[in-house]
Amino acid sequence: MPDASPTVLDLASDSVALTKAICDFPSVSGDETALADAIVAALAGASHLEVIRDGDTIVARTNLGRARRVVIAGHIDTVPINKNLPSRFETDADGTEYLWGRGTVDMKAGVAVQLKLAAELVEPAYDLTWMWYDHEEVSADLNGLRRLAEHRPDLFAGDFAILGEPSNGQVEGGCNGTLRAEIRTKGLRAHTARSWMGENAVHKLAPALARLAAYEAETVEVDGLAYREGLNAVAVAGGVAGNVVPDEAVLTVNYRFAPSKSVAEASDIVRALFADYDVAIVDAADGARPGLDAALAQEFVAAVGAEARPKYGWTDVARFSALGVPAVNYGPGDPIKAHADDERVPVSQILDVERALRAWLTAD
Amino acid sequence: MPDASPTVLDLASDSVALTKAICDFPSVSGDETALADAIVAALAGASHLEVIRDGDTIVARTNLGRARRVVIAGHIDTVPINKNLPSRFETDADGTEYLWGRGTVDMKAGVAVQLKLAAELVEPAYDLTWMWYDHEEVSADLNGLRRLAEHRPDLFAGDFAILGEPSNGQVEGGCNGTLRAEIRTKGLRAHTARSWMGENAVHKLAPALARLAAYEAETVEVDGLAYREGLNAVAVAGGVAGNVVPDEAVLTVNYRFAPSKSVAEASDIVRALFADYDVAIVDAADGARPGLDAALAQEFVAAVGAEARPKYGWTDVARFSALGVPAVNYGPGDPIKAHADDERVPVSQILDVERALRAWLTAD
Repeated sequence: MPDASPTVLDLASDSVALTKAICDFPSVSGDETALADAIVAALAGASHLEVIRDGDTIVARTNLGRARRVVIAGHIDTVPINKNLPSRFETDADGTEYLWGRGTVDMKAGVAVQLKLAAELVEPAYDLTWMWYDHEEVSADLNGLRRLAEHRPDLFAGDFAILGEPSNGQVEGGCNGTLRAEIRTKGLRAHTARSWMGENAVHKLAPALARLAAYEAETVEVDGLAYREGLNAVAVAGGVAGNVVPDEAVLTVNYRFAPSKSVAEASDIVRALFADYDVAIVDAADGARPGLDAALAQEFVAAVGAEARPKYGWTDVARFSALGVPAVNYGPGDPIKAHADDERVPVSQILDVERALRAWLTAD
Repeated sequence: MPDASPTVLDLASDSVALTKAICDFPSVSGDETALADAIVAALAGASHLEVIRDGDTIVARTNLGRARRVVIAGHIDTVPINKNLPSRFETDADGTEYLWGRGTVDMKAGVAVQLKLAAELVEPAYDLTWMWYDHEEVSADLNGLRRLAEHRPDLFAGDFAILGEPSNGQVEGGCNGTLRAEIRTKGLRAHTARSWMGENAVHKLAPALARLAAYEAETVEVDGLAYREGLNAVAVAGGVAGNVVPDEAVLTVNYRFAPSKSVAEASDIVRALFADYDVAIVDAADGARPGLDAALAQEFVAAVGAEARPKYGWTDVARFSALGVPAVNYGPGDPIKAHADDERVPVSQILDVERALRAWLTAD
């Protein structure tokens, strides 16, 4: 087989070739060990780095006594492969060259740039803490960064953090918070032939749905970025049988709220909107303020020549934010293509991000 | 085992003992053959009857050249047994004696009375067609009476029909029709982090639920009986994942309509109420007019000294009604106890129905 999976990574190759090599190293969540082993092996010769491993999460850091420390992180797992490996190059009608395949966008191009610079930058302008972690694409309780924050919170110390999630080479700051709530109605079961003996729990959802349909989500400015919120039904369920008046119904809503609001405040908003219902908050995560008021963040945005935008989806920047470290997303690839079967990254974006990051990390 | 299942039925025993014997002959839908065999065997000596068998449905009829013919029918299957066999006698605190156990109400007491009178009435006032049929408690396509109506529609000829379904010894006329409709909404899927890119199909159900909640069901008088209608959501479903704007939702409604309306008319009412939605009628059955304006029906109600009431649930009387034969439900047992784990019939009701039916069938 000419396209057999690689077993070693050459961090001296250019970042595009390195992206291809990492993509062709399948690492669906739960199956990251081979790639993690290869990363540790590839870093073995880098004497300027202290390497720490926690499961399939690897931390590599300089200890140069610099005044400021920057943390740069990326996850090494992907969502399941769907006939989109091995990766390949393709050029579209207008001449743009892409690397196509699972992981090219989310987020092995970002990881490749990070690995290359980690090995190369022996004397960076800031002390650097690189983190490559497992289990980002699955349930939060498995997340390698969450685990590391429990085992070694000291490793998260820093003045600024960059997560290499795809952002089209722009800087996406912070993220909205999210909560899910269940709105439950009760009734009384009866045969529909004598429905006046019962009380229909599904009918009772009418006002709740009307409120959702009429809801006008806010747009909230936080640290100079405009965060657009959203409140949506994500599920509705009820029914016993085709001839029974249902005695229970459940409407599940998902509220995405600006990072200026806490989970408690967001919960109060949902509870107030559905004050006449039984409301249970079933899961929630704080958002992250963009942190773009931090000096280092402003220097970074200016240096890479990027435009700062709000991030809507919840990402692991919130973990840094929760630890008091301003954090942004910055990486090659269009987030719209993440998880898509035709996932592909423009080759030029990989090189642009590599150049910009190198320039900033080596500037005086 | 002293309580072993019987293998023969003695139609000369009293109707209470016969009810007990038939109940102790388990015959859950699909498992009626042994009981059907026993019925055929028990009728073997009745030379006044022509016996016809179709699967586990048995027809026994007189051919006396009477001016009028009455059809009397009952199903021999039951819903599943739930530790409520063998049957037993019990007396409650106020001294009422019951026969307790699966099938006592629905409807082996009725069948016992019918079998006893079929064997006994050699010279009835009307020609009689007795029908005992299988598969009433399950899907309509298995129903023995439906099958017989296809194979031998000629056997349904008659001036009046009595179905022995439990009616507390009163006469319940006709039944409401029923239809189920699916109201489907479409939207556009999107990540809830960017919900403004999508279109929420669940939210679109709000007006439909509001209309159901506000709906005031009619009460319609048909042939002197008041039929109360009902329109209910029986199921609601929608949702893709906890972070996805749903692109489809389905609300299932069940409309129970008075027998003066056809399925087509009832469908139009539902379609008009939800005119702005995609509505699909997924199943429907006509109701049955009570037929109490027929002379024989009026004579019957007067003779048995019963009160005529509307029947709400759909029953097989509708099959007779569809064939132009006025039909009523008349049998011992409280329909509320049908299918209940504590199913039980007052012994006196079995005897009352037996006496009243005999008196009417033998009067000049």
